[in-house]
Amino acid sequence: MSKTTMLSTHQLLHDDTLFPADASILPIAQRLYATVRELPIISPHGHTNARWFADDEAFPNPTALLIIPDHYVLRMLYSQGIPMESLGIGVNDYDPRAVWRIFAKNYFLFRGTPSRMWLDYTFSRVFGFTERLSEKTADEYYDGISETIARPEFRPRALFDRFRIEVLTTTDAPNDSLEDIQKIRKSSWKGRVLPAFRPDPVVDPDFAGFRENIIRLGEITGEDTSQWKGYLRALQARRAFFKSQGATSTDHGHPTAQTADLSTAEAEVLFIKIFSGRADAAEQELFRAQMLTEMARMSVEDGLVMQLHPGSVRNHNLLIFKKFGRDIGADIPQKTDYVNALRPLLSRFGNEANFTLILFTLDETNYSRELAPMAGHYPCLRLGPPWWFHDSPEGMMRFREQATESAGFYNTVGFNDDTRAFLSIPARHDVARRIDSAFLARLVSQHRLEEEEAYDVLHDLTVGLVKKAYRL
Amino acid sequence: MSKTTMLSTHQLLHDDTLFPADASILPIAQRLYATVRELPIISPHGHTNARWFADDEAFPNPTALLIIPDHYVLRMLYSQGIPMESLGIGVNDYDPRAVWRIFAKNYFLFRGTPSRMWLDYTFSRVFGFTERLSEKTADEYYDGISETIARPEFRPRALFDRFRIEVLTTTDAPNDSLEDIQKIRKSSWKGRVLPAFRPDPVVDPDFAGFRENIIRLGEITGEDTSQWKGYLRALQARRAFFKSQGATSTDHGHPTAQTADLSTAEAEVLFIKIFSGRADAAEQELFRAQMLTEMARMSVEDGLVMQLHPGSVRNHNLLIFKKFGRDIGADIPQKTDYVNALRPLLSRFGNEANFTLILFTLDETNYSRELAPMAGHYPCLRLGPPWWFHDSPEGMMRFREQATESAGFYNTVGFNDDTRAFLSIPARHDVARRIDSAFLARLVSQHRLEEEEAYDVLHDLTVGLVKKAYRL
Amino acid sequence: MSKTTMLSTHQLLHDDTLFPADASILPIAQRLYATVRELPIISPHGHTNARWFADDEAFPNPTALLIIPDHYVLRMLYSQGIPMESLGIGVNDYDPRAVWRIFAKNYFLFRGTPSRMWLDYTFSRVFGFTERLSEKTADEYYDGISETIARPEFRPRALFDRFRIEVLTTTDAPNDSLEDIQKIRKSSWKGRVLPAFRPDPVVDPDFAGFRENIIRLGEITGEDTSQWKGYLRALQARRAFFKSQGATSTDHGHPTAQTADLSTAEAEVLFIKIFSGRADAAEQELFRAQMLTEMARMSVEDGLVMQLHPGSVRNHNLLIFKKFGRDIGADIPQKTDYVNALRPLLSRFGNEANFTLILFTLDETNYSRELAPMAGHYPCLRLGPPWWFHDSPEGMMRFREQATESAGFYNTVGFNDDTRAFLSIPARHDVARRIDSAFLARLVSQHRLEEEEAYDVLHDLTVGLVKKAYRL
Repeated sequence: MSKTTMLSTHQLLHDDTLFPADASILPIAQRLYATVRELPIISPHGHTNARWFADDEAFPNPTALLIIPDHYVLRMLYSQGIPMESLGIGVNDYDPRAVWRIFAKNYFLFRGTPSRMWLDYTFSRVFGFTERLSEKTADEYYDGISETIARPEFRPRALFDRFRIEVLTTTDAPNDSLEDIQKIRKSSWKGRVLPAFRPDPVVDPDFAGFRENIIRLGEITGEDTSQWKGYLRALQARRAFFKSQGATSTDHGHPTAQTADLSTAEAEVLFIKIFSGRADAAEQELFRAQMLTEMARMSVEDGLVMQLHPGSVRNHNLLIFKKFGRDIGADIPQKTDYVNALRPLLSRFGNEANFTLILFTLDETNYSRELAPMAGHYPCLRLGPPWWFHDSPEGMMRFREQATESAGFYNTVGFNDDTRAFLSIPARHDVARRIDSAFLARLVSQHRLEEEEAYDVLHDLTVGLVKKAYRL
Repeated sequence: MSKTTMLSTHQLLHDDTLFPADASILPIAQRLYATVRELPIISPHGHTNARWFADDEAFPNPTALLIIPDHYVLRMLYSQGIPMESLGIGVNDYDPRAVWRIFAKNYFLFRGTPSRMWLDYTFSRVFGFTERLSEKTADEYYDGISETIARPEFRPRALFDRFRIEVLTTTDAPNDSLEDIQKIRKSSWKGRVLPAFRPDPVVDPDFAGFRENIIRLGEITGEDTSQWKGYLRALQARRAFFKSQGATSTDHGHPTAQTADLSTAEAEVLFIKIFSGRADAAEQELFRAQMLTEMARMSVEDGLVMQLHPGSVRNHNLLIFKKFGRDIGADIPQKTDYVNALRPLLSRFGNEANFTLILFTLDETNYSRELAPMAGHYPCLRLGPPWWFHDSPEGMMRFREQATESAGFYNTVGFNDDTRAFLSIPARHDVARRIDSAFLARLVSQHRLEEEEAYDVLHDLTVGLVKKAYRL
Repeated sequence: MSKTTMLSTHQLLHDDTLFPADASILPIAQRLYATVRELPIISPHGHTNARWFADDEAFPNPTALLIIPDHYVLRMLYSQGIPMESLGIGVNDYDPRAVWRIFAKNYFLFRGTPSRMWLDYTFSRVFGFTERLSEKTADEYYDGISETIARPEFRPRALFDRFRIEVLTTTDAPNDSLEDIQKIRKSSWKGRVLPAFRPDPVVDPDFAGFRENIIRLGEITGEDTSQWKGYLRALQARRAFFKSQGATSTDHGHPTAQTADLSTAEAEVLFIKIFSGRADAAEQELFRAQMLTEMARMSVEDGLVMQLHPGSVRNHNLLIFKKFGRDIGADIPQKTDYVNALRPLLSRFGNEANFTLILFTLDETNYSRELAPMAGHYPCLRLGPPWWFHDSPEGMMRFREQATESAGFYNTVGFNDDTRAFLSIPARHDVARRIDSAFLARLVSQHRLEEEEAYDVLHDLTVGLVKKAYRL
C-alpha cells in the first residue's frame, strides 16, 4: 500500500458515487460535496470500544477487525445458509484466513447494500486495493490488510487522527468505571473520546443481570438502590460522574417509545415489585416508560442530551441467541408509535428550554406521520438521522424527502455513524455527506433552494447541527 | 411594486420551480403546465373567513395577515425555542413590526418546507419583492406589504378576483347563521363563496361546548335535540339550510375513521348517555362512529358530498393548548385504519349511486395499502388530495406515485388548498399544478402515457374532477 | 394482423417504456434489458386454469378472455359507477360485444395503471393493434381479437409455447384431482404445467364449505379427518400426491401472518372445536396460525417450498359478495405484522437448512421495517416479489428501493405474475424485467454497482433466483 492511499483515486470507489448522474444535478452535487468532503468527523453516537484508544494496540487480523464485530456482515452471510460457526462465531478457536475466504467468496451477496459500499470504501481508501474482493483476491486482501494493520500508523490512535475525527462518543453502562476513557484523558494523546450514559442494564427489567446490576449500582454509589429514591439518587450520581468524564448525552434503547408519568407513590410501589422480580410484562413496560420520564427530568436538571432508540425486537431468533449471544444480526424492527407513547413525557418536559430529546426510529412510516410534525412543534425535540437498517443511501434519502417538509433541516441533528466497526466510520460519514449533497442538489436544480443557501445547510448538517444538538 | 407584478418574472420564484431539471422531462413539464397555469382556481375546501369578503375591509398589517393565522409558521418558530408570546400569540397587545422582525430573522428555518415556497410565491407574485426575506430586508418587507394592503386593489374581494378564484368554500359550524355568506350573496359583488357543513361541534362529544351546542341547535331549529330523533331532524334541517345557502358538501374531522351501524334503539340509548355527559371514551368514539353513518345516510338523501378528515391527535401539547388555545401547530397525526373502520358505513351506503365520500389521510401508508384499493372499487369513494403536513411537493408526488396505480386518476378529486391563509391560495394551487405537471411529464417521458392524454388528465385534475366530485 | 406481430415495433408500446428517460441512465437500462428480454418465462406462482392447456380449446370471445376474469378491470369500471351486470357479471346471459364497448369507451380510466400497460402490451404484441382502444376503435378491436383467437396458433398450448413459457404453476385445492395436470403430462405436448398445494379450503374455518371439505379430504385419503392426527396425515398424503404430480410448492392465503406453536394436546382440543363449528373468531385465527406451523413442519420433511400471502380482507363489499361472489375486486389490504406473528413458526423452523418460506405482503411498510431485516437474517426466509396492488411499475421500484439494502438481491426470488389472465403473462414479466433493468441502471449510473455485476444480478432476478427458490 502506498502512503498516498487517502488521496489517490481508486476504481473501487468512483468520485461521483451516489450522486444523481443527471447532468442537470451532478455538477451541483459535486460542488456541494467538495465543500464538506474534508471537514472533520463529529461522531456523537456509536459503539466503538474505548479500550482500543486507551491501549492503542494493533488490530489482530483482518477477520477480527472487519467480520467478527460487524453484525451487518454476519446476518447477510447467515441468511444464505452459511453457519455462524464457520464464520468464527460461537467457537473457541477459528482460522481467521478460512473465515476470510468464505467472506470473500460470498462478497457478491452484498451487492446493492450499504455494507458493500462501506467495505469498498475501507478497502480502497484505507488499504489501497483497486480490484474488488472475491474468491480470487481473497488471499491478496488478507495478506495486504494483515501487513498494513501491523504498522504503527494503523494503530487505533493513528487512524483516529488520520480519519480527522474531532470527537468520538462511545456508549457505556452506568456501572462502567470508564477507566479506558480516563486512561485516554490522562494520556499525551489529544484524541477526544467521550462516554455516553446508557442506563438500559439498570432500567430495563428484561436486561440480563438486571437485579444484580441494580445492586452493584448501589455498591458503587453508596445508595440503597433497593428503594425507589435511593435508586434514583444513584442514577443521578452516575450521570454526574459520566458528565465529569466528558459525557454530554444519555441514550436509551427500549422496545417501544412508551413513557409514563406516575406519582411518586405509584412509582415506589412499582419499583419494589420490579426489583423483586415478580412484575409481569405490562409492569415491566410501565417501569421502562416511567424511567424515560425520570431520565428526562434528570436531563432537564443536568443538561445531558437525551437520545431514544426504540422499536427493535431484540434477539428475535431464540436459537441463535442461545447459541451465540446478542448483537449478531437477529434484532428485527417493529411498528413503533410515538404520538401517543411520548405524550406523558412531553406533557411534563416538552416545553423546557434546556432539554433536548433526540428521537430515532426503525419504522420509517413515522418520518412524515409523527416524527417530523412533532419535531416541527416541540422545542425539546430533534430528529436523529436514519438508524441501523435505514443508515443507507436509499434510507437517508427517504429521511430527507419525508422529514424535511414538516421538520425543516434545523430540527435534525446531522449524522451518527452508530457503528461497532471503527474502520467504517469515514465511509459512513462520507456516504451521509454524499446523500445530503445529492438531496440538496436536487432541491437547487428544482429552484427550491438557492445554491448559496445549500452550502450553508450542508455545512450545518455536517458539523454545525451536530455540535449544537449534542452540546459538543 | 409595479402594476405588472402578476406577470413579470422574479428571482424569488423561478419559472421552472419544482419541475425535474432533467432535459428529457423538463420540456414536457413546461408544456403541460402552460396549459393549466392560467386556469381559474376552484377551492372546494378551506378555512378562510367569509367575513373578509362580506365586509371587504383592508387587512390590518403584515403580521396579522401572514403570521398570526398561519399555524405552519408558528409551529416551526416555536420548535426552535421562540416563545409564542414573542410572536403575538396569547398576549393582549403586541408590536406587529417586532414580531415581523423575529420572523424575518428566522426565515432560513423554512428552507426545504412548503411554507417557504408559499411565502416566497406571495412575496414575489403578490407583493413584488425580488430579494429574499431576511433580517436585513425585514423592514423593507414590512413597509412594502403595509403600504400595499392599504390600497383598494388589495382588499379581499379585489384579491379574490385577481387570483381568478371561481369558487371558494368555507367551513362552518351547524349553528352558524351564515350571515357573512348571505351578505356576500346579497351584495353586488359576483364572487362565489359557499359554506360547507361541518357538524363536529354537535357530533363530537370532545368538542368544547358540545352539550351547549346541541341545546342551541334545538333552539335554532325548533327541534327537541335532547332526544335522538329530534337531534337527527335538527341536523337534517341545518343541512337543508346550508344547502339553500349554496353548500354542496359536508366535512367531518374525527380522531379516527371509525364508523358504526347501530339499530335505532341502540342509538337512542347511546345518545341519551352522550347527551347526559356520562359516556366514557369508548362510547364517545362509538357515537362519533355512528354519526358518520348517519351523515352518510343524510348525504344519500340530500346529495351533499361528504368529506372525512380523520387521524389527527388535536392539541397534543396540553400546556400550549391551555395557554394559547387550538389550531396553532400542536396537532399531530396518528396511525389511521380505514379498511375495517369504514366497513359499517360502506356496507350500508358503499354502493349508492348518488353518494360521494371523499377520504383524506394524515397517514400516508394508506395511499397504496387501503385508500387506493378502496377507491378503486367502491363507487361512492373518491380520494382527497394530500392533506396538511403532506400538502407539499414531496407529499403530493408520493400521493400520485402511490395512489394512481390502484385508484387511477379518475377516482381522485383534484386539489384542495385547505388554508386559513388567504394569500397562500394561488401559491398552493400553483404548486399542485406544477407537481401534477411534473408527475405526468415523467409518465410521458417513460412512454406510460401519451402527451395528448396527459393534457386531458392535467385539465381534469385542475378543474374537471374538482367540479364533478364537489358538484360545483 | 401480420405474422411478425411479436417482432415488430408498435406505437402502443415504445421500446423504452418504463426506462428513465435521463440520458445518463437510459442507455444502461437498454443494454441491461437487451440481455434478458428474450429469456424464457418462469412462472412459479399464478392462477391460470390447467384445463385450458389440458383441453387446448379456442378462447370463446374477447370479453370472456380479457374482461370477465380480470378483477383489476372489473373493479376500476365498477368504481366509476358502471354496474357489474352491464359487464356480464351475475347475469345468466350477456352480449359480449356490448360489454366490450363499455370497456372500450371507459378505457381512459386505466391511464396510469398497470392494467393499461398489460392490456396495451397484449393488444400490441399479441394482437398487433397500433391504435389505442377507445369508443371509436371498439368494434375493430372486438372483431380483430375474435378472428385471431379462432386460429389454431392462438390456442392455449400454442400461445404457451409462443410466449416462451418454460414452466407455469397453477394453484390448486387439496381435494383437487389434478386431472387436468395429469392429462397434460400424458399428452404429447411438452409444456410444463405444475400444480401448487393451496390448503386454504381445509385449513381456514372461514372458507366456504370448510367442514365438508375436510370430510371429503378424509374420503379421498382414507384417513379419519375428524381427528387431529388423521387430519394431519390426510394433508401429508395430499402433499405427497401433489409432489408426485410435479408440485414443488405450497401456498397459503391467510388474513394475517399469525403463526402458533401449540402442544399436540392443545392442538387436538382446538381441532375438535374447529371441526364442530363452535369455535369463535379468536380460535379460528389460532387454528390458522397453528396450521401454518404444521405446514412448515411438513415442508421441512417433504421439501415443498412454502409461500405465505397474508393481509387481505376478502370480500370487503358484502353486497357485491352476496350478489356476485368472490374475486371480483372487493378484496382490500390491511396492516400486517410479521415480526411478532411469525416468531412461533420461526422459533421452530427458522434455522432449518432444507426449508424455504417465501413471504409476500400487501402492506408495503413492511419492506424496509420487517421483511428485509428478517430475510436478511433467517436462512429459511426469502422475499416474494411485489404482490397484487403492488405488482406495478412504481410498486416494483419501491420494493427494490426499500428491500434491497437490508435483504440484498439474493434473498429475493425474482418475479411472480400471479395472474388469472393468461394473455397478460408476457406483459407482466416484461414489465418486471424493465423495472429491474431501470433500477439496476440507476445503481450503475451512481457507481453503486459495476455494469458487469448488474448483468449477473439481472439474469439471476429473471431466471436464476426463481429456479433456485422454487426448486424448479
